[in-house]
Amino acid sequence: MSAVQRVCIIGVGLIGGSWARALRAAGSCGEIVGCGRNEEQLRLAVDLGVIDRYERDPARAVAGADVVVLGVPLGSMRSVMAAMQSGLAPGAIITDVGSAKASVVADAQAVFGTPPARFVPGHPIAGTEKSGVQASFAELFRGRRVILTPLEHTDPGAVATVTRLWEVCGAKVSTMSVEHHDAVLAATSHLPHVLAYGLVDTLSRWDDNREIFQYAAGGFRDFTRIASSDPIMWRDICLANRDALVAAMRRYIDDLNELLKAVERADGDRLADVFGSAKQARDRFIRLLEQ
Amino acid sequence: MSAVQRVCIIGVGLIGGSWARALRAAGSCGEIVGCGRNEEQLRLAVDLGVIDRYERDPARAVAGADVVVLGVPLGSMRSVMAAMQSGLAPGAIITDVGSAKASVVADAQAVFGTPPARFVPGHPIAGTEKSGVQASFAELFRGRRVILTPLEHTDPGAVATVTRLWEVCGAKVSTMSVEHHDAVLAATSHLPHVLAYGLVDTLSRWDDNREIFQYAAGGFRDFTRIASSDPIMWRDICLANRDALVAAMRRYIDDLNELLKAVERADGDRLADVFGSAKQARDRFIRLLEQ
Repeated sequence: MSAVQRVCIIGVGLIGGSWARALRAAGSCGEIVGCGRNEEQLRLAVDLGVIDRYERDPARAVAGADVVVLGVPLGSMRSVMAAMQSGLAPGAIITDVGSAKASVVADAQAVFGTPPARFVPGHPIAGTEKSGVQASFAELFRGRRVILTPLEHTDPGAVATVTRLWEVCGAKVSTMSVEHHDAVLAATSHLPHVLAYGLVDTLSRWDDNREIFQYAAGGFRDFTRIASSDPIMWRDICLANRDALVAAMRRYIDDLNELLKAVERADGDRLADVFGSAKQARDRFIRLLEQ
Repeated sequence: MSAVQRVCIIGVGLIGGSWARALRAAGSCGEIVGCGRNEEQLRLAVDLGVIDRYERDPARAVAGADVVVLGVPLGSMRSVMAAMQSGLAPGAIITDVGSAKASVVADAQAVFGTPPARFVPGHPIAGTEKSGVQASFAELFRGRRVILTPLEHTDPGAVATVTRLWEVCGAKVSTMSVEHHDAVLAATSHLPHVLAYGLVDTLSRWDDNREIFQYAAGGFRDFTRIASSDPIMWRDICLANRDALVAAMRRYIDDLNELLKAVERADGDRLADVFGSAKQARDRFIRLLEQ
């Protein structure tokens, strides 16, 4: 398969920037054009060698691109699609890296009438709590999973090209339905982020919060690492995947209330059961991750 | 100040074993005698050079010891105190490393009538999710905080000796009241552990849990690291610090219900507020930790 001639990345942040770096390192594309709202970030991306050049206007940026990558927050997908639409080359493949998929498909439907056959919704299960092109690195996707959620009418050739562009970065690509993706990610990613943000917020509003944080240790640091993630990106994710997130939060709050009752009635057997089976499941997960 | 002649550690696990290693590395004690229920672990502790010898019987183990360290789970403190009582040398200093302090003080009161003047309740804010003497290492307490919660009648000389024994391990020692310790630790440690155990348990009972864990990534791994901790130790901590933990859980569940409502009504401003101030607080905490 030949290399892609020109890739346009709209939103050259941690994910978009890392994909650009990895594609370049693999020699899998000719020119990389960046686009975004923050010109300073775009200039930095050129200085860092992440992109070759940039355009401020999405329609100009996508002109002549074989593949367009949408790396913007979920809340900006629709307006970016609308702004780039007039510049798209015939046959251009569009993909995105959003953490929720139903909302992006709805955005495409709203802008294009029906989601284009060469639009391949995607989501790399990778990232750090850092943001911006300065945090990007070519190895981010190595050994990580990428989920593509093609629709019934999506062009298999477009799926194959996007799959290849991820695989050259060392990622393992799977496909699943939009709905299934959104339910799984609500559970493993969106819910934990809300819980971590919520905990830090709760504690920071306690009277003696300075002291509280002073006596927190490594366990707390790791537990709350994801609460250092970009708040706007996560606001958008929560809104975009609202139904699945609400279902996951309700389920978790119900279980937590049961756990609270067990603590209240000093039910040591119940606590040992829950903690023991959680430890087993978590240890299994780690073995799975290390495979 | 001269080195302590003989230290007896009852419960030679991660914490007790690491303290023994660090004391030995600092040349701060003569002989270290271990004691515990699991003879295999004690033999391993001798083989690893963590302790010099061991006794199975607590009263024999503490005989002639200048300092006795209680490193057993909170649920075993009372029975261990009762079992060692007859063997204690006059003037022996007793300290513990339990994660809750009111319950240990109550145990001492139940066993000794009134908590001995040379009993210094303590808690090193350090640990990993691993357990057992094989996980112990001398550097565990370097730069970490240790909280001592002496009572009104506690002998200042005993507090000074225990403080020194922690400081030679590189720890920073503070003192505070038993009640304040238990409230702060409920917030920063006990609550996060319950939340992490609860999340993994909730997810592991979903129908498609195999797949759910398959698509979990680094954020989930860090968020749930503490759910790989010893379930029995954490059952005991939850029971021992029940009142403070129940208060912290209620507060958190209330806040989480508010957050759920914000997601349900798609209140992006509220979500951005909570996430943004949480990120700020967490980033401040990390700078504090790195100082």
